Amino acid sequence: MDAAQEAQKREAFRQAVVNTLERRLFYIPSFKIYRGVAGLYDYGPPGCAVKANVLAFWRQHFVREESMLEIDCPCVTPEIVLKASGHVEKFTDLMVKDEKTGTCYRADHLLKDYCKDKLEKDPNLSAEKVAELKHVLAVLDDLSPEELGAKIKGYGITAPDTKNTLSDPYPFNLMFQTSIGPSGLSSGYMRPETAQGIFVNFKDLYYFNGNKLPFAAAQIGQAFRNEISPRQGLLRVREFTLAEIEHFVDPEDKSHPKFSEVSKLEFLMFPREDQVSGRQARRIQIGEAVSQGIVNNETLGYFIGRVYLFLTQLGIEKDRLRFRQHLANEMAHYAADCWDAEIECSYGWIECVGIADRSAYDLRAHTKLVITPVKKELGLAFKGNQKKVVEALEKLAIVPSKKQLGLAFKGNQKMVAEALEAMGEKEAMELKATLEAEGEAKFRICSLDKEVIIKKDMLSVSKEKKKEHQRLFTPSVIEPSFGIGRIIYCLYEHSFYTRASKDGDEQLNVFRFPLLVAPIKCTVFPLVQNQQYEEVAKKIAKSLTTAGISHKIDITGTSIGKRYARTDELGVPFAITVDSASSVTLRERDSKQQIRVNVDEVASVVKELSDGVSKWPDILLRYPTHSS
Amino acid sequence: MDAAQEAQKREAFRQAVVNTLERRLFYIPSFKIYRGVAGLYDYGPPGCAVKANVLAFWRQHFVREESMLEIDCPCVTPEIVLKASGHVEKFTDLMVKDEKTGTCYRADHLLKDYCKDKLEKDPNLSAEKVAELKHVLAVLDDLSPEELGAKIKGYGITAPDTKNTLSDPYPFNLMFQTSIGPSGLSSGYMRPETAQGIFVNFKDLYYFNGNKLPFAAAQIGQAFRNEISPRQGLLRVREFTLAEIEHFVDPEDKSHPKFSEVSKLEFLMFPREDQVSGRQARRIQIGEAVSQGIVNNETLGYFIGRVYLFLTQLGIEKDRLRFRQHLANEMAHYAADCWDAEIECSYGWIECVGIADRSAYDLRAHTKLVITPVKKELGLAFKGNQKKVVEALEKLAIVPSKKQLGLAFKGNQKMVAEALEAMGEKEAMELKATLEAEGEAKFRICSLDKEVIIKKDMLSVSKEKKKEHQRLFTPSVIEPSFGIGRIIYCLYEHSFYTRASKDGDEQLNVFRFPLLVAPIKCTVFPLVQNQQYEEVAKKIAKSLTTAGISHKIDITGTSIGKRYARTDELGVPFAITVDSASSVTLRERDSKQQIRVNVDEVASVVKELSDGVSKWPDILLRYPTHSS
Repeated sequence: MDAAQEAQKREAFRQAVVNTLERRLFYIPSFKIYRGVAGLYDYGPPGCAVKANVLAFWRQHFVREESMLEIDCPCVTPEIVLKASGHVEKFTDLMVKDEKTGTCYRADHLLKDYCKDKLEKDPNLSAEKVAELKHVLAVLDDLSPEELGAKIKGYGITAPDTKNTLSDPYPFNLMFQTSIGPSGLSSGYMRPETAQGIFVNFKDLYYFNGNKLPFAAAQIGQAFRNEISPRQGLLRVREFTLAEIEHFVDPEDKSHPKFSEVSKLEFLMFPREDQVSGRQARRIQIGEAVSQGIVNNETLGYFIGRVYLFLTQLGIEKDRLRFRQHLANEMAHYAADCWDAEIECSYGWIECVGIADRSAYDLRAHTKLVITPVKKELGLAFKGNQKKVVEALEKLAIVPSKKQLGLAFKGNQKMVAEALEAMGEKEAMELKATLEAEGEAKFRICSLDKEVIIKKDMLSVSKEKKKEHQRLFTPSVIEPSFGIGRIIYCLYEHSFYTRASKDGDEQLNVFRFPLLVAPIKCTVFPLVQNQQYEEVAKKIAKSLTTAGISHKIDITGTSIGKRYARTDELGVPFAITVDSASSVTLRERDSKQQIRVNVDEVASVVKELSDGVSKWPDILLRYPTHSS
Repeated sequence: MDAAQEAQKREAFRQAVVNTLERRLFYIPSFKIYRGVAGLYDYGPPGCAVKANVLAFWRQHFVREESMLEIDCPCVTPEIVLKASGHVEKFTDLMVKDEKTGTCYRADHLLKDYCKDKLEKDPNLSAEKVAELKHVLAVLDDLSPEELGAKIKGYGITAPDTKNTLSDPYPFNLMFQTSIGPSGLSSGYMRPETAQGIFVNFKDLYYFNGNKLPFAAAQIGQAFRNEISPRQGLLRVREFTLAEIEHFVDPEDKSHPKFSEVSKLEFLMFPREDQVSGRQARRIQIGEAVSQGIVNNETLGYFIGRVYLFLTQLGIEKDRLRFRQHLANEMAHYAADCWDAEIECSYGWIECVGIADRSAYDLRAHTKLVITPVKKELGLAFKGNQKKVVEALEKLAIVPSKKQLGLAFKGNQKMVAEALEAMGEKEAMELKATLEAEGEAKFRICSLDKEVIIKKDMLSVSKEKKKEHQRLFTPSVIEPSFGIGRIIYCLYEHSFYTRASKDGDEQLNVFRFPLLVAPIKCTVFPLVQNQQYEEVAKKIAKSLTTAGISHKIDITGTSIGKRYARTDELGVPFAITVDSASSVTLRERDSKQQIRVNVDEVASVVKELSDGVSKWPDILLRYPTHSS
């Protein structure tokens, strides 16, 4: 099969999957009755259930197994936070506009499409030209706006829809902007990632963990990217669910106590050197990868192993999952190492999880702006191993007077005190000077949205030099970040297959979801429409509800074959057919094997299977088989 | 105790709860290190776990038990949807500005505070004045901007922080506005409720349900309100989690098949008449309330009963929960009936769940703008009981040619076809005319963010008059809508108590969370710091993890009493103290009773309790008690 045929086959497979997904409401283009919005999708009932199952498993596999501190922060984020993190300045893509219609395109996408298209479809390219185009593809992410513009002009690339000329590339910030509060003066954004909510809470979380490192915090939530021109269906969207972990660790000790539990795992890895020298991804033991220095440290390696287990237990195929190391030009300058879990689907290899050692960048970003109390705390608190350094530290002490604040502000006392304590050094010293000169000063309390009068007796501000017999450092952050929607889409493709109907006249669609993922665990069908069977079906449904097993009754008069086909298309692992008042048929989706089970027993058998207490082959031994 | 003392006591209680919540990171003012933002809060680790537990129970109690169709839509919503729903025009509060500083206030809040303050603190008010102020409080929600302004001027109300004069009241829209896509031309908002995502999908969900009524859809997700001046801490916030149900029903048959399951429930209800005539809330059986016509219909009554069960099973006290009917002036003109589940806490009676019969308003709102296909489908599909009406219906048929679209648009064929089918009648007829005159026409595909050329052979548009032997109607919507954050805050207050320490020298804080809600089910303490006990503790922790039970190890050397106090403050129901290598002490939080259990058995005992298979008194009979 040549490349074009391969591409056609992939496209046909994708259409089959996507048609099934859309027809069965796994997803729905959002606001469809108003013609939709590019890059926004709803999860319909089965998709919503799959998502809930994936997130529940994520919580069990990461948060619970590793005792992580899970938090939940708002999406609306004030500008000051995203200025500090660098998003206001740098979270951009380069855009070009159709000079006549104003339609916007991502500049790098147009160039990429041009090069790929030429390479695929032009048989007359010189060897030199081939090398040139391949080089452009390799350095695409490194091009400046000027270089990108020059290439677009040089190759004569025009707007794909109209063939009009294009503007020069310029940066477009991908954050959705908004305004917080009624004044219109306070700018904010919808968060582009959940991580910042964790970083700004570092101090409290560290305290919650008994002032001990390492520890990890986690967050599941919506994130937003105002993509210039979303494509690739469910893979590039404007709003999506992220699940992120920030593991804080001493930069001088990145060992992991549980590393031995994953070190023997072997899977496809694609180290930087292999990519540069044109080799393929290869199977490496994660223990080897760490000891050979391919992966920077044990903690990073531990998370790579845990991500591998997470994805494969969800149903991602092992040989279509690889861990690719970022090339030097892909990685932020501060990062120590970074690996993407990439899953192969009809769109190619797709980045679904990023696992990065971001060193101390994020915590430092926030301390740059807010020297106190974060820097103070970072300094004092991280006793680490209390080794080495003895350093002189100038300490700023802001001590609000509880009594005076209480008298003046009553219920709001706490918020006033917190705002005072959050002052930076410069501001605190200025306030001190004003209080000494004038006896009082105006002070804005953001959390109350108003200004108050602070009097001299309400706080003391002092600065003292002090020898600290401690090692001072900012913790490193190791961040596994999961794009839940992308994982789910790849899972759909990896779970989908077709098989001939009983009469052989039709190809039927099946999702082979593991029990863990399946949106509904069990369907219940009365074989024929009569009151007795329907009552038995309802009784079974009730037992399933009590057992907490999601299920669906199908009492339509459709043929049993059609009803099986429908339930297979939703990836339901088990179907109960009520064909007598005392016992029923229980069918497994992929093998299509059937057994006879008593009416009173069948819910508990499905529960056993759902909980993983028994596997289907065990159950098969315990009950008589049924042939239809 | 007089009113002032009562108020003081409530305030002191609230401070005790809030201090504990904030100290133990149940919640954290968001972006605290940047001085915070009014009305935004994070859930810290225990709060996040409580929230996850409440939502999991909500899914089991509503979605699973009632086989609802749960969906998950984006927060970013295009303007057209919220224009149709009325939010762009009407989702406003009246605002006044401090004329010098520009600080904004909610006009009704200032007037309310003024009246309440006068009534509480001015002993010299004439009977006439008292009556007047009480009347203002009663009609507060009905006042026009002009009336509200006149009252504020008349009473001489000034800005509370500065005593400056205030502007006239004017409406402020409470939605966070943003812009979708790079062009800046497409306005959008962060959704103010999740319900609209369900309404716009009505047609697909109805189809998914086999074209049968009634059925219910549900959604859990973030919603946003850009409050003018948030107060009341966690109760009035700018971003919050909603859980909403939209139950679609034939307007002529609002009976509910499972009503008998709740009809005998008796609880505090506060019907409209009782409020108007100054009576108190009283205990009524929900079955009686429906049969006497106090509650409009069975389905509404059924949900009131289910909400009662949901809240009380979470731990809300029965005698501090009431269902209050909306007064005529509170209710939207289209609503048939509306009841709020109100929970009493230190802020008074707080609306936590709204249960409304919204008649056909919402579906009609969207069909007004988009006549086809929604109206067509609503008309044709709802055969209801196929009774009565024979009506002439003009049908618009838009039939895209799959073949031609496929040739022209390949992978995008489907989106083009969907956009064509979503045309309104006027637009479709215009397109038809253009195609007939010119052979082709430009057509914008929103879901692709671009314009395409449609040719004559790509679709047919026709209109035909046809007799339909069907009853045409728009379904009614019954909507229970849950403010999850408010429920959780009230739950904190209802669960909080203090008790004396063993020595009697201290008051200790306890949250008596039910197992269902508790953020952590079990803590594990080695009695003293030694390796043997720590290893036993880790072994038990591992068994708990496998059993899916959230837990925490505390290996600090702190006294066991202090560690119990800490775990009680997080509302952890069980504590395991490792005081030998073979057996351990298991302690229940509220009774402080202790039993001896073997090391190998203790995880499964906690699992039994967590799953509700056994209750503490049963376990107490099975194991020897331990006295410390």
